[in-house]
Amino acid sequence: MASAAKPPSGAERLLQAAVAAGVKVCFANPGTSEMHFVSALDSVGGMRAVLGLHETVCSGAADGYGRMARRPALTLLHLGPGLANATANLHNARRAGTPLVNLVGDMATWHKGADPLLNSDIAALASTVGTHVHACTPGEDLGAAMAAAVGATAGSRGAPGDSRVATLIVPHDLSWQRSEEDGAAVQPHANVPAAGAAQGAPLPAEVQRFVREAAAALRACPRGKAALYIGGAACLAEGDALPNVGRIAAATGAALLCENAFARLDRGAGLPTPARLPYFPQDAAAALAPYHLLLVLDARRPVANFGYDGAPSQLVTLPDEAVWEFDSRGVDLPALLALLAAEVGGHSVTPGVNCCGVFATLDRPALPTGRLTAAALCQTVATLQPEGTILVDESLTSGGTYFNHSAACPPFTHLTLTGGAIGAGIPLALGAAVACPDRVVINLQADGSGMYSLQGLWSQAREGARVITIICSNRSYAILKVEMARERITPSTGKAARALTELGTPPIDWVSLAQGMGVPGSRAATCEELAAALTAALARQGPSLIEAAL
Amino acid sequence: MASAAKPPSGAERLLQAAVAAGVKVCFANPGTSEMHFVSALDSVGGMRAVLGLHETVCSGAADGYGRMARRPALTLLHLGPGLANATANLHNARRAGTPLVNLVGDMATWHKGADPLLNSDIAALASTVGTHVHACTPGEDLGAAMAAAVGATAGSRGAPGDSRVATLIVPHDLSWQRSEEDGAAVQPHANVPAAGAAQGAPLPAEVQRFVREAAAALRACPRGKAALYIGGAACLAEGDALPNVGRIAAATGAALLCENAFARLDRGAGLPTPARLPYFPQDAAAALAPYHLLLVLDARRPVANFGYDGAPSQLVTLPDEAVWEFDSRGVDLPALLALLAAEVGGHSVTPGVNCCGVFATLDRPALPTGRLTAAALCQTVATLQPEGTILVDESLTSGGTYFNHSAACPPFTHLTLTGGAIGAGIPLALGAAVACPDRVVINLQADGSGMYSLQGLWSQAREGARVITIICSNRSYAILKVEMARERITPSTGKAARALTELGTPPIDWVSLAQGMGVPGSRAATCEELAAALTAALARQGPSLIEAAL
Repeated sequence: MASAAKPPSGAERLLQAAVAAGVKVCFANPGTSEMHFVSALDSVGGMRAVLGLHETVCSGAADGYGRMARRPALTLLHLGPGLANATANLHNARRAGTPLVNLVGDMATWHKGADPLLNSDIAALASTVGTHVHACTPGEDLGAAMAAAVGATAGSRGAPGDSRVATLIVPHDLSWQRSEEDGAAVQPHANVPAAGAAQGAPLPAEVQRFVREAAAALRACPRGKAALYIGGAACLAEGDALPNVGRIAAATGAALLCENAFARLDRGAGLPTPARLPYFPQDAAAALAPYHLLLVLDARRPVANFGYDGAPSQLVTLPDEAVWEFDSRGVDLPALLALLAAEVGGHSVTPGVNCCGVFATLDRPALPTGRLTAAALCQTVATLQPEGTILVDESLTSGGTYFNHSAACPPFTHLTLTGGAIGAGIPLALGAAVACPDRVVINLQADGSGMYSLQGLWSQAREGARVITIICSNRSYAILKVEMARERITPSTGKAARALTELGTPPIDWVSLAQGMGVPGSRAATCEELAAALTAALARQGPSLIEAAL
Repeated sequence: MASAAKPPSGAERLLQAAVAAGVKVCFANPGTSEMHFVSALDSVGGMRAVLGLHETVCSGAADGYGRMARRPALTLLHLGPGLANATANLHNARRAGTPLVNLVGDMATWHKGADPLLNSDIAALASTVGTHVHACTPGEDLGAAMAAAVGATAGSRGAPGDSRVATLIVPHDLSWQRSEEDGAAVQPHANVPAAGAAQGAPLPAEVQRFVREAAAALRACPRGKAALYIGGAACLAEGDALPNVGRIAAATGAALLCENAFARLDRGAGLPTPARLPYFPQDAAAALAPYHLLLVLDARRPVANFGYDGAPSQLVTLPDEAVWEFDSRGVDLPALLALLAAEVGGHSVTPGVNCCGVFATLDRPALPTGRLTAAALCQTVATLQPEGTILVDESLTSGGTYFNHSAACPPFTHLTLTGGAIGAGIPLALGAAVACPDRVVINLQADGSGMYSLQGLWSQAREGARVITIICSNRSYAILKVEMARERITPSTGKAARALTELGTPPIDWVSLAQGMGVPGSRAATCEELAAALTAALARQGPSLIEAAL
């Protein structure tokens, strides 16, 4: 217990600094080397501890939390294996540009050289998901180390490979040592601002020049021949960013496209309706082909997800001078978009009045009936989801039509699988629910991917998270069957091909799995059953799961 | 389809070489970049494909397979995230000295530079679990690359940090390209020998000298003042290795100790009964303290699992000249042990006749009755396990007494958690069952650790694996409570401390979880119920699960 007389332990200093920097939640699965952090969570206070029963739950939840709260959560992970378990969802967080700080224990400084069983190269693992990797050393100001890690999560992901995932590695003995050193010397960090470190400050001269030149180029381009390609903070209603994107499109006649794997897109009535870049490279290249000018806003220039024989790597074939992009790190993106909107006359655009179809007007699809198909599932969800829903989307092949079905729903937020590392959905939904307890989270979840992180259902139950998981139960890795067909790999009906893509033997009973972890579940085989189950789930406070038989 | 007319694809060449080298099983979770391997599994033939619903199942199963079959399995993993998911159990495999080859897809060579979403530094990840990490390049002989990877898994883990985990990284385009190059130039590799590359060959002169000098030192040491500390191949009945260890102990009066976290120990009636080094450092140091001479046989000199304030790092305090150890890589360990046994007169020792209590005589404990405790659970298993059982032990705190309860069971094999990365048990049991279909596998499984890789139950059902999982359901991370008490971290009853160590809210219903994945389950709250459930499970062919309420 941290009495008034004792100076704080290293673990306490680290947590004090994190709390001072505005970090409020720690998604944790600690081990022996992190026990002093567990104690410090109690003695320091101000931080909620959420247990994940596998570290992929912790990192995925921290990603979902960060996407919604726009501030980092901590993960607390046990040594190299704990970090390794977290890595797939940290990869997704890296691609999402999510602010996130990993706190990873290490062996005591005087013991690491003995190479005990659990020893491994933690920094090498951490470097695969982020550039801020810091191993604390004896005598170091640990509070400052934490403040620097939180600081490294600020900004936005501008450059390719850029990441807002920071990792602090803390040897066991540093966590228990107490020091008289003045922890108050650590400057509290402001919360991570919405879209860059410089919010509120005037835009730098070179950014203002970029905006004026881009505006001139947009105005000079024939209507319908320019496109705005958005990602990151340009997809958020916050700071009027996305509405201003819509005003720019409406005023200039530019088309509006968003990343295929967007981290977060605020959507629905009153907001712009970007077209989503298709998944497969030939389709995506075709979607981009009509445009003579591309303005890339807080996104990476699109590339194919995979290289296929005869398919493109780069999806944009325009000459470099026709692609307007900038390094958005440190840039106040809402301010940039406001200025650009003003430059192109977009401030006269009023959604619902003279917006040229760029902004959505409330228009729900009708409830479908009869046999449940993937499209009918998507339509049912779009029909019933309440205003303010956070829709976590790891639906892969089953969710193909959801994006269009939901275009004119009441305002909601849509999160997707950003890094392609499956197993994101259930943890993302947990984290989003922790960040936004007043909103309902609906997770459209592919079954194969869901099995990667099903342990997260237990944490949803434990935390009373308001999450409705809808399992798109097609009992196959359907995307792989599509890929085999596309790559003309035959026979896809071979024994090994079936063994590695079909999940029907034995059938997975998701209702049993959910019940085993304290989440009430139900099964739907028709549209009517799904609508009834979803309506009932929406009336509950805690989590629930619906297995939709496709 | 690989017609006779077409030269083999890169994927086919790789698999042909693996099959030629004696690899028979591939534990897989492929993605887009591995689809040509899936096709090749069908066109090449000779390799069984087993699907895991998370890569930790694949790597853990390959570890279990390798420990039992004494030859490497392949894993087939999707890019960096797939390898990251596999890493925790690869860490265990590394510490176990298990031969294992990872086959990991990468982006097409001409596409990697575009840094697509799923791109990451695969080699950096792989380097944390093994030193043989090879990224294939255009024009390379892929068959030779596979042969080299399999070759790198031979030998034993002699040096600290040594690993028999090899990783081959194969860019997507190399897997689909076909070449006329003569694949027959690849030399088939012999199966990995039991205990080193030089089996059957005369021992090198320096090893013979080591043996003679060690024998002289053992003979010169007062009875009871020398100890043999065994790991790796010295723990196996194969090649008469472990029986010869027993003969050496019996002939010299040396004590017999084994690693705490042994990879595989052949045990039971007719075999030697080493004492297991205790888990906590003070206890382990005390167990080693009486000895004046330590002979380390295919093990690492023991160190503490963690550094604690005031506790030792190195557990052996003898001067270096009193510790006899050697680099066992490339050494034919059974031959070495046979020579050492002969040098000390051990060949006159006959188990059961003049073995001074070193060898076990069949002696089952009685069936306990009444309330189920952890000790009663262990005793029940030891009473009922049939001859030839493979006992996978990730029981942690609950299984503390099993080792002694089972010392005189009919001959069986005991596998433990070698690297401390929890979540090994269910996958290890799968892999052991695939390697040894004629034996029954009983997995003593801690509940918290079991939740790390519960997906493996589905693969057990799919493969019809003869595995009985006994969940030691104490609904807590009990080991962490012990650690908090040992480190005098108070209050362990704080809100965060409870949130991060107690698993009872909501309670996990393992019977539902098992049923959800096609594994029949039952629950036992008394010794009688456990005995009845275990007896019934032993009569089944496929997998089953028993939740033992502790």
